[in-house]
Amino acid sequence: PPTKLPKVGTTIFTEMSQLAAKHGAINLSQGFPDFDGPLALLDRVTYYLENGFNQYAPMAGVPALRNAIALKVEKLYGCTVNPETEVTVTSGATEALFAAIGAVVCPGDEVIVFDPAYDCYEPAIELNGGRAVHLALQAPGFTIDWPQVKAAINSRTRMIILNSPHNPTGSVLSSADLDQLEALVKDSGVLLLSDEVYEHICFNGPHQSLLRRPALAERAFVVSSFGKTYHTTGWKVGYCIAPAPLMTEFRKLHQYLTFCTVHPIQLALADFINDFPEHYLELPDFYQQKRDLFCQLMQPGRFRFTPADGTYFQLMDYSEIQPDMDDLTFARWLTTEIGVAAIPISVFYQSPPEQRLVRFCFAKGDDTLREAAEKLCKI
Amino acid sequence: PPTKLPKVGTTIFTEMSQLAAKHGAINLSQGFPDFDGPLALLDRVTYYLENGFNQYAPMAGVPALRNAIALKVEKLYGCTVNPETEVTVTSGATEALFAAIGAVVCPGDEVIVFDPAYDCYEPAIELNGGRAVHLALQAPGFTIDWPQVKAAINSRTRMIILNSPHNPTGSVLSSADLDQLEALVKDSGVLLLSDEVYEHICFNGPHQSLLRRPALAERAFVVSSFGKTYHTTGWKVGYCIAPAPLMTEFRKLHQYLTFCTVHPIQLALADFINDFPEHYLELPDFYQQKRDLFCQLMQPGRFRFTPADGTYFQLMDYSEIQPDMDDLTFARWLTTEIGVAAIPISVFYQSPPEQRLVRFCFAKGDDTLREAAEKLCKI
Ligand SMILES: CSCCC(=O)C(=O)O
Ligand SMILES: CSCCC(=O)C(=O)O
Repeated sequence: PPTKLPKVGTTIFTEMSQLAAKHGAINLSQGFPDFDGPLALLDRVTYYLENGFNQYAPMAGVPALRNAIALKVEKLYGCTVNPETEVTVTSGATEALFAAIGAVVCPGDEVIVFDPAYDCYEPAIELNGGRAVHLALQAPGFTIDWPQVKAAINSRTRMIILNSPHNPTGSVLSSADLDQLEALVKDSGVLLLSDEVYEHICFNGPHQSLLRRPALAERAFVVSSFGKTYHTTGWKVGYCIAPAPLMTEFRKLHQYLTFCTVHPIQLALADFINDFPEHYLELPDFYQQKRDLFCQLMQPGRFRFTPADGTYFQLMDYSEIQPDMDDLTFARWLTTEIGVAAIPISVFYQSPPEQRLVRFCFAKGDDTLREAAEKLCKI
Repeated sequence: PPTKLPKVGTTIFTEMSQLAAKHGAINLSQGFPDFDGPLALLDRVTYYLENGFNQYAPMAGVPALRNAIALKVEKLYGCTVNPETEVTVTSGATEALFAAIGAVVCPGDEVIVFDPAYDCYEPAIELNGGRAVHLALQAPGFTIDWPQVKAAINSRTRMIILNSPHNPTGSVLSSADLDQLEALVKDSGVLLLSDEVYEHICFNGPHQSLLRRPALAERAFVVSSFGKTYHTTGWKVGYCIAPAPLMTEFRKLHQYLTFCTVHPIQLALADFINDFPEHYLELPDFYQQKRDLFCQLMQPGRFRFTPADGTYFQLMDYSEIQPDMDDLTFARWLTTEIGVAAIPISVFYQSPPEQRLVRFCFAKGDDTLREAAEKLCKI
């Protein structure tokens, strides 16, 4: 059959994780912890599983979990959201991103994305008949060039997709960025989609959620993920927050994409958040120690880097090691020859710039990070 | 914002389940068992949950589960499928249906659906720019009028959506239907999407899966659901089988709709299927007893019916009770005044015919069925 997504192959995450498995390499490519979720959380899932909570959840998510989300957002970002009409639990953040795009992007619409861009945005835009307009984040530090954004906005611009803390670069939006964004979109019809799945992994100052600004929140879908926060990426539970009129459209998609999300896990998450409301406050320290350990261990090697401001990813420049090798080739070579898998960055660009960067995931046990760094420093 | 799905509201399942809860009615509307999955299966989920299997599953599903699916399909339907390239595990059958439609339906394409049609087909077709062509199943018995199908096929016809055992009517495709379908599509480019989520709940003779016919399987996405088979609708794990070239396109959608499906549950399902490979063989008897009990209990009442051939749904004609009431009004009245929730049928039609039918779910404990029938027979 003719393909609707000619540019899409297997994701880089699947490719590199498979290559790592095949060659017995340490897998610092696909982003997931090699440690487990909190025992108290696992135990609550077991409880609901073994006590008859295995039928459909409500379409929008279990009320207790939506309430817990609304409480958190109020506490952290000062944003009042109605859990009945403005919060929906989804089958992972991936589903939430697709549903948000599908809810509003129409044929001919333009959507601004910043490269390097997480790989699921563009296919969703294209499947809905839209066109991704790619703007590159600027060196150094992978920041947004706001005048460039302003110049890109036109009458076809339906949406801007933000992502902070940013995957794959680890950069974060500042409060000044939110000022710029606010100035740009006010009095316009442009909608926002904010991928904040690493909201609790932010090292230098608090996370600048779009939910902090009423003028942004009123036009934004904000997406987050329990997998990243509770070390349970394999459960595939995420959520979206949006003003009621946008959420009405979002739910039309959600109810026909997956209808609802795994029930016992939703109930367990609600209990855990209520019982341990401060758990996520430990995350920045927890991951900063890992980032610092990994960076310190990598210091003697020939990679160059600036420590990430957020996420559990660290970019490393390998231009002193293999100046002429493109990053996909380098990542494969690292995996098969050195025994450490990484993610190349150029795959997240429409027009990759001249740079020599790969991404390492440091959500791993300290021993794993030591072992990996030892191999990487020998090159 | 303008709506992309003007016809879509909250699904009838959400509406009726909420109404049932609000009025304390017995909920025979939304289709789900009020009994639990097999204990051995629940225990396997607990095992994987508590032993470190909480990170991403492979995008296409865990190999052991895909192998188990391929084995079953070979044994039951004599169809050889490659678990590597022709089986994908999804976040419920709903996701599989959306991904199959999204993989191949392009703007301007027509897709034939049979009314009454399960409610998720048309929004998926429309979101992909296609147009649903509605053909009504024929009284009595809700069968397909094949000459009508033949007349509806033209150069824009991309796909025909089949559903057997059929929700909401409980009718099933016969082997003669498959003959007709085969004659119709051979030498054409028309693809098939077969929703077979009730494949193991089939009472009079074996289920006529499209996978039995190589000439159909070669052009079909066949979708099924573990939730229906193992009484765990709230886990949202389903799957799709399709020939490799179609599956390649399907996976492009899947990897950007949900990427992968809850890992510990997939592993548990694989174990359970391997340990109890005959479990689903008990389902026809198990549900036939419930159907027979419910029908027998309803005999003294004023509803008229023909026992369903498959699914866990029973249609009932209420024209002797409320000849002038439309079925949505009747279903609401049943829920609020009589205390039993049902699903009206007209919502599944583009042009509802003159009929007075509601659907009851009999996947309930015998006492619940008795209590419901008692109320219903008093009317
Ligand atoms: C959905 S698999 C990819 C996980 C991830 O977000 C990443 O590695 O960037
Ligand atoms: C996804 S909720 C609806 C369950 C169901 O399939 C039905 O009641 O028909």
